[in-house]
Amino acid sequence: MAGLSGAALAISGAPAFARADPLPSWNQGAARQSIIGFVTRVTSPHGTDFVPIEQRIATFDNDGTLWSEQPVYFQVVFALDRVRALAAQHPEWTDRQPFSSVLAGDGSVLARLSEKDLLEIVEATHSGMTVAQFENIVLAWMATARHPRFNRPYTDLVFQPMLELLAYLRGNGFRTFIVSGGGIEFMRPWAEKRYGIPPDQVVGSSGETAFRIAADGTPELVKLPKVEFIDDGPGKPVAINRFIGRRPILAFGNSDGDQQMLEWTAAGGGARFMALVHHTDARREWAYDRTSSVGKLDKAWDEATRRGWLVVDMKRDWGVIYPFEKQVTGRHPAGRDGG
Amino acid sequence: MAGLSGAALAISGAPAFARADPLPSWNQGAARQSIIGFVTRVTSPHGTDFVPIEQRIATFDNDGTLWSEQPVYFQVVFALDRVRALAAQHPEWTDRQPFSSVLAGDGSVLARLSEKDLLEIVEATHSGMTVAQFENIVLAWMATARHPRFNRPYTDLVFQPMLELLAYLRGNGFRTFIVSGGGIEFMRPWAEKRYGIPPDQVVGSSGETAFRIAADGTPELVKLPKVEFIDDGPGKPVAINRFIGRRPILAFGNSDGDQQMLEWTAAGGGARFMALVHHTDARREWAYDRTSSVGKLDKAWDEATRRGWLVVDMKRDWGVIYPFEKQVTGRHPAGRDGG
Repeated sequence: MAGLSGAALAISGAPAFARADPLPSWNQGAARQSIIGFVTRVTSPHGTDFVPIEQRIATFDNDGTLWSEQPVYFQVVFALDRVRALAAQHPEWTDRQPFSSVLAGDGSVLARLSEKDLLEIVEATHSGMTVAQFENIVLAWMATARHPRFNRPYTDLVFQPMLELLAYLRGNGFRTFIVSGGGIEFMRPWAEKRYGIPPDQVVGSSGETAFRIAADGTPELVKLPKVEFIDDGPGKPVAINRFIGRRPILAFGNSDGDQQMLEWTAAGGGARFMALVHHTDARREWAYDRTSSVGKLDKAWDEATRRGWLVVDMKRDWGVIYPFEKQVTGRHPAGRDGG
Repeated sequence: MAGLSGAALAISGAPAFARADPLPSWNQGAARQSIIGFVTRVTSPHGTDFVPIEQRIATFDNDGTLWSEQPVYFQVVFALDRVRALAAQHPEWTDRQPFSSVLAGDGSVLARLSEKDLLEIVEATHSGMTVAQFENIVLAWMATARHPRFNRPYTDLVFQPMLELLAYLRGNGFRTFIVSGGGIEFMRPWAEKRYGIPPDQVVGSSGETAFRIAADGTPELVKLPKVEFIDDGPGKPVAINRFIGRRPILAFGNSDGDQQMLEWTAAGGGARFMALVHHTDARREWAYDRTSSVGKLDKAWDEATRRGWLVVDMKRDWGVIYPFEKQVTGRHPAGRDGG
């Protein structure tokens, strides 16, 4: 597995992937070449673009960049499932919007939920338990919920080319951070296993939390029904500053919510790499951009074009989308990714 | 230098400090032994207390734990110096409390400033510039300000035994985080050089920050005059959860503001290490505890005693307090710290 060999190389300090193709799921072409060219430049000790290892910070959006986000953000599916799971404890929800619509099971409910409705649902379903209990709820949902199109766990829908890119960067001394509009505590329980990204490198939206001593004397962290921070748009550079404290030299997103993160990254000195995933493959994944209600890519796309940032064309640039395709189709021989 | 050799060992992955005393500034005795015993237990692969490397999280308070905090928190000295430096741009301050008292240069002003006054001073002096400008202001102050008792830069007043402990832990696979009531952006500019702790491992209090595009098109992060989060007391476990996302297995503090961090650390499963620095050395540093207005150690001390947490007696347990003592007195031969 690329992930494992990347980790091993990072530990041994050996030159990364000298023996094997680091990005086997990326098709030959400009996208792949620009990534390898950038990494080679910033890691060449005698080159003019060399970047010391402690400054090799890479930030990645999650929804639509590291995994799919259609037909709706997976955390929204989780939140709606939680409304149904908790309904018995909340008889008042049967008469109260937006909960009553969710519970009525109307297939079109999602289209009618406003941002305020969603916030209310998230606050109600992501609170009232300890942080540890919430982690178990997320893990249990990930183990049992199935994506309607693929009938697979949502964590199967991570992008194989991005797993390879994360491992390749780490193998070259980068630290890889998630900077997502999704909830920190929705991502952390599985991000280390799936992406190789530890909890302290997961930046995202958050709810307020309180420390208290329980009746039995145990200290607890309790999740409160109040959104604390939305890590989207201009919030992303703010969160990068708060959590990372250093400007990234590489940033990857896929939507207008990532525009300010890319602008902030681009405005630093020295070599920089800004990129967007453009969802162009309706057959293997989804195709959407300027008019999508989820992951809208419009202004950021124009800016990327104008400024020469990489726009990855999923259909053209990715030989494999999901890790499970490798197992199913055999189109991607195991020997090729150097494990 | 212990710091350098620790870093080198961490990179090479070699067994840490097999050749030399890892804690040369710690006197022989129970404190030193309990630290070495704990680290040995959690890093022994076949022992019952073994802790996988990704869970080796250590958190340290800063003021009074990693450096001195008397006669007043150093960031307060910085804030008062900033009031004086900015006075010309704020003619209104001459008639407005608490600024007028500070500007009047009354030596007893500090004793009369309330917590609300201090907050107002911090908000006024830590805002109105970009994050990058503030970093430069902090670095310039650190380069020129002198501690009144020692006539040395404040960053000279870090504790040599704690520098050795940080390097020893990192040499054994720990990640070392600051979790301080002090401002994140006051600590980050110098913490990596002084402590070996990178910006993303500095957790602390923070002010609100906004992203904006300046008139010339440059993206900026601007510091706003509003405190966002106070990382003290029950705020410390909250911040540990938000920033680190994993419970520490070792936590070190020195005051009642660290009590909840130690409680949160103690409540995890497996081997745990909780410790307090007790300031007992008026000759070399300061002696204070239950009645001090700065770094009050009262309830946390009682809890530490009751629960058997380590209480470091500075006078008894530390052979050297500050790094400059080694150069000046020669009481601590360079050969001993294994560099």
